[in-house]
Amino acid sequence: MSKSLDFLTEALRRLPGIGPKSAQRMAFHLLQHDREGAAMLSRALYQAVDTVHHCAMCNTFADTEICDMCADDARDHAMLCIVETPADQMMIEQTLTYKGLYFVLMGRLSPLDGIGPKDLHLDKLIARAADGVVGEVVLATNFTNEGEATAHYISEMLKARGLKVSRLARGVPVGGELEYVDAGTIARAMLDRRSA
Amino acid sequence: MSKSLDFLTEALRRLPGIGPKSAQRMAFHLLQHDREGAAMLSRALYQAVDTVHHCAMCNTFADTEICDMCADDARDHAMLCIVETPADQMMIEQTLTYKGLYFVLMGRLSPLDGIGPKDLHLDKLIARAADGVVGEVVLATNFTNEGEATAHYISEMLKARGLKVSRLARGVPVGGELEYVDAGTIARAMLDRRSA
Repeated sequence: MSKSLDFLTEALRRLPGIGPKSAQRMAFHLLQHDREGAAMLSRALYQAVDTVHHCAMCNTFADTEICDMCADDARDHAMLCIVETPADQMMIEQTLTYKGLYFVLMGRLSPLDGIGPKDLHLDKLIARAADGVVGEVVLATNFTNEGEATAHYISEMLKARGLKVSRLARGVPVGGELEYVDAGTIARAMLDRRSA
Repeated sequence: MSKSLDFLTEALRRLPGIGPKSAQRMAFHLLQHDREGAAMLSRALYQAVDTVHHCAMCNTFADTEICDMCADDARDHAMLCIVETPADQMMIEQTLTYKGLYFVLMGRLSPLDGIGPKDLHLDKLIARAADGVVGEVVLATNFTNEGEATAHYISEMLKARGLKVSRLARGVPVGGELEYVDAGTIARAMLDRRSA
């Protein structure tokens, strides 16, 4: 067999969720049916590794020192929303309900995976939130155990520095039927009920 | 967001079976956790596109004009086994029951996908099988409708040129329980029964 093909199959296994069979299928497909796509992917990888770094303000992936969103004067610089990943940031942007800036953790506290406060660069977050312009920090980490723990840790850290901290509301999802919503969510929605 | 990241996400979608969400997850993973892997994959793709072509004898992927297996004098050059893909070839090699050479179709006849005899380069196969050394051709295409049709077409073509043509045996799989084997397979095994 071809050594270059073996090398390609091995390299494709570095992609998350790709095992030996999938890697082989991908390599065959690219070489047999889409060499143009393979060349394009090679260039895209090279370019991304070469140019993508973290925005100095919000920590998300960016080609420039400050990303477009952080450089946008039309956004509310007094609001800072903290999310785990750029994907979460995009989901919130799609709702069109938030016009402030973001800070992207690029992960979550996860002692089991050995990810502590230092690994998440929370010092960068403190420096960002304490710039004197930010008035309110909205915690939008996931509502998983790890996301909740991360939110709690950051909340304590920022409140100690006199910042106003809020958290996304928990409750029954829009369109949710009580019969099929888990008890924990309903309990939370009952405790957090609001005047109608 | 980063343009290089968008380009990478788009390029990853050229991989078979990868949708927008998976592509994004892969891009984030590579940039956040495995830039070395991304650089390696970039090089592997570039190298494969640059060096991998088809063996002049067996049509499989190879870095050299004739692949290692076709150049191996220890193998039986009078036997030629026809398979659909290099993966099928590897499966047969693993059985250690075949010591001849191969011809890899890199596909199958599939009129619905617009793949006819010309697209499969069957002229290359005829030239290969009619080299005067090959005595028997073993058809090892899949036992799907398309694989069977491909085997039938090639069989007629080669028999017309006076070559001996055989097909892998059909029957009950090793370890198979009759109760759970489909009727078509049992019918075939009954018709092809052999003296015990």
